Amino acid sequence: MKVGLGLGFQIETQIFDERGVGRARAGRFQLPGVLGKPYVVQTPTFMPVGTAGTVKGLTFEDLKKLDAQVILGNTYHLYLRPGHLRVERLGGLHQFMAWDGPILTDSGGFQVFSLAGLNRIDDEGVTFQSHIDGSTHRFTSELSMEIQRALGSDIVMAFDQCPPYPASASTVEAAMQRTLQWAKRGFKVELKSHQVRFGIVQGGLYEDLRIRSAQQMSQLPFDGFAIGGLSIGESPELMQEMARFTAPLLPSDKPRYLMGVGRPEDLVEGVRAGIDLFDCVMPTRNARNGQLFTSQGRVNIKNSRYSESSESLDPECSCEACRYYSRAYLRHLFVSRELLSARLNTIHNLTYYLTLMKKMREAILENRFDEWIKTFYRNRRNDVR
Amino acid sequence: MKVGLGLGFQIETQIFDERGVGRARAGRFQLPGVLGKPYVVQTPTFMPVGTAGTVKGLTFEDLKKLDAQVILGNTYHLYLRPGHLRVERLGGLHQFMAWDGPILTDSGGFQVFSLAGLNRIDDEGVTFQSHIDGSTHRFTSELSMEIQRALGSDIVMAFDQCPPYPASASTVEAAMQRTLQWAKRGFKVELKSHQVRFGIVQGGLYEDLRIRSAQQMSQLPFDGFAIGGLSIGESPELMQEMARFTAPLLPSDKPRYLMGVGRPEDLVEGVRAGIDLFDCVMPTRNARNGQLFTSQGRVNIKNSRYSESSESLDPECSCEACRYYSRAYLRHLFVSRELLSARLNTIHNLTYYLTLMKKMREAILENRFDEWIKTFYRNRRNDVR
Repeated sequence: MKVGLGLGFQIETQIFDERGVGRARAGRFQLPGVLGKPYVVQTPTFMPVGTAGTVKGLTFEDLKKLDAQVILGNTYHLYLRPGHLRVERLGGLHQFMAWDGPILTDSGGFQVFSLAGLNRIDDEGVTFQSHIDGSTHRFTSELSMEIQRALGSDIVMAFDQCPPYPASASTVEAAMQRTLQWAKRGFKVELKSHQVRFGIVQGGLYEDLRIRSAQQMSQLPFDGFAIGGLSIGESPELMQEMARFTAPLLPSDKPRYLMGVGRPEDLVEGVRAGIDLFDCVMPTRNARNGQLFTSQGRVNIKNSRYSESSESLDPECSCEACRYYSRAYLRHLFVSRELLSARLNTIHNLTYYLTLMKKMREAILENRFDEWIKTFYRNRRNDVR
Repeated sequence: MKVGLGLGFQIETQIFDERGVGRARAGRFQLPGVLGKPYVVQTPTFMPVGTAGTVKGLTFEDLKKLDAQVILGNTYHLYLRPGHLRVERLGGLHQFMAWDGPILTDSGGFQVFSLAGLNRIDDEGVTFQSHIDGSTHRFTSELSMEIQRALGSDIVMAFDQCPPYPASASTVEAAMQRTLQWAKRGFKVELKSHQVRFGIVQGGLYEDLRIRSAQQMSQLPFDGFAIGGLSIGESPELMQEMARFTAPLLPSDKPRYLMGVGRPEDLVEGVRAGIDLFDCVMPTRNARNGQLFTSQGRVNIKNSRYSESSESLDPECSCEACRYYSRAYLRHLFVSRELLSARLNTIHNLTYYLTLMKKMREAILENRFDEWIKTFYRNRRNDVR
C-alpha cells in the first residue's frame, strides 16, 4: 500500500473471541484507483467472478445495481483470450469491460493446475497446455506479474502453487516453499502505480505448514494476504477449521482474503473467523445450473413443484428476478433453456451473496453479529431443494 | 375493434404512389389494453419476437428501454411449454413475463408446419408431433383461438395454413381456401374483451390467389390483416414484389402486418408498400450468431479484423453495446461464447431495427420519406462483412 496517500486498510469494528483472538471485523479497504480517484471497499465483502472480462451474463450496469464492490478477473483466461497485451493496448481491463470499480486478478496459478491440460512444474514455473486449443505455454512468477500489470487490475495476486487435495506433507511443504520463492521473485516486477499486491499462504491442511507459510509471507511487503489451497476437495468442515486456524496467523492490519470460498454458510464462518474478502464461482455457476440461494435455503428451480408457483423466489429479496417474476416463470425459463434464465438467476444469486455480506457487515458494526448468525442458521434450517 | 371505445387504427399521414395507390403511412393503432388502460402503438413498427415468453436474453425492462411497442409470443411454443392453461392460471402472458405492453400471438399454424415433426393436415386441423418430446398433438382453428384467449394476448392471429415454397397453384389455392374456412370458424370462439383479431391473407406468389384471398378475408370482421406465406424461401425480390402487390388489396383503414419479414431493406420496402407492422427473428437470431446491423451495413463481429478495434460498433447508435463497449470487446465475448455476447448483440440489433422504424415514421410524418430512403441505401452501399 502506498504509505502517505491515506490509503490502506482500516478496521472499523472487530470482535474478539474468548481467548482474545481478533475475529470478525468490519473494515474499509482503500485502493489508489486506476484514474487517481481512490476506491473504498467496505469489508467484509464478496467479489463476483468475471473470468474472461465479464461476470457471465451481466453488464457493468448490472454489477453497479447489485452494489458489487470488487470483481475478479482470471489471469489464465485473459492471457489466453483475448491476450493481456491486447487488453493493455485497448486501455486495460477496466476500460475493456467498462467497469470503473476495483478489479482483483488471480495469479493464474490455480487455473494452470486445475483447468489446463498436461502441466509440468519446476522451480522456475509451470509449463501447461491451453484448455482452448492445446497450445503450450509457460507461466513464471515474473510473467504472472507482467500479465496482471498489463491487465491493470487493482489487486494483483502473487503467483502460487496450489497442491491438490489430498497431498502428503512433503508435497504440500514443497509447494509452500515454491510459493514463497515465487512470491519473492514477483516483487522484482514493478507494477503500475495504482496496483497493490496480495500474498498467498499455502500449507494445505497441515497446521504447522500454515504457521510457517503465514510467518514467511508476512515478512514480505504485501498489502494483503490470501488463504489459498482450500476449498479444493476437502470437506466444508475441514475447510472452515483451517480458515479459522489460519486467519489470525495473518497480519491483523491487512485485508484477509479466503480464495475460492464458498457456500453462504462458509462465508458466515469465514467472516466469523476474521476474513474480509471472498470469491467463488458458486453463486454464478449455480445460477446457471438452476441452484438458487434464498433466505429460506436453497431452491432447485427446475423442480416441478414450482411449475405453477406464482410466489416470488425469495420474499425477502428485492432483486429483479424476485420483484417481477414468479417461481413458475423462472422454472419455465430454466426448463426451456432460455438465455434469460442464466441472467435472472445470476442477478438473484449475486444479490443474495452481496446482501448476505452487507448484513454481516452491519451486524458487526452494530455489535450483534453472534445474534445475527443464530438467526441466519435458524432461517436456513429447512433447505428446500 | 370495439367500436365506440375510441379504439382502432388512425392514419396520420399517408403517401400515395403515382397511380394514386395509398403507400407508406404513419398511424396510431389503439388497443383496449389488458388492464383497461388502452395501448397506443405508433406505426410503422417492428415487433420483437419473444417465442417462449421471453425475447431471448432480455427482460421487460430491457424492452422498455428499447422502446419496443409490441412483442410477439408463439402459440405453438407456449402451448407445448409451459402450457397455455398454466399461463392463464398464472395470470396470463403479460403477468407471466412481466410485460405490460401489447402482445401479439401468432396462430401456431406456421410452426406446426416448419418446426414440428411429422404433421398431417385435414380440413379440420393439423396433427403434429412436438419438437420437444415427439408427443402427438392436434391444432384446430378453435383450439388456436382458445390457446390465444388463455394466453391473453392483445392481438390474436387467425389460424392459417402456410404452404411451403415452391408449391403448385392448386396446393396454394387449397391452403388459401382452408385458411378462409379456418378464419370463419375462429370467430365462433369468443375472445377476452381486450383482445382483437387479425386475419391472414395467403396465396403464395400467385397474384390471382392473393386477390381472392384478400377479398374473401376483407369480408370478415377482422381488426387488422396480415400477409402470410412470404419470406419462406423465395427470393427477397419476389417477396418484396408480392408484398407490394398485396398491401393495397387489404382494407386501408386497418393495420397491415407483413409476417416474418425481414432484413432492414425488406422493412424499408414493406413500409414503402404500405405495411404497418413487421416481425422477424432476424435481429435477435442474427445477434446470437454475431451478425450485427449498423448504419453502415452489416458487421460480422467474429471477424478477426475487429480483434483490436477500440471503435464502437455503430457510431450512430446509442444502445448499451455501442455506448460502452468496443468492437474488440464484443468480438471477445462472441469468440469466448460468453452469455453477455447474445445480450449485448440482441440489444444492439433490436435498437437498430426499432430506430429504423422510428426514423421511417418520422420521415413519413414530415413528408420526406423518399429522400430518407435514398439516404438509407447510400449509407448501406458498403456492407462491411
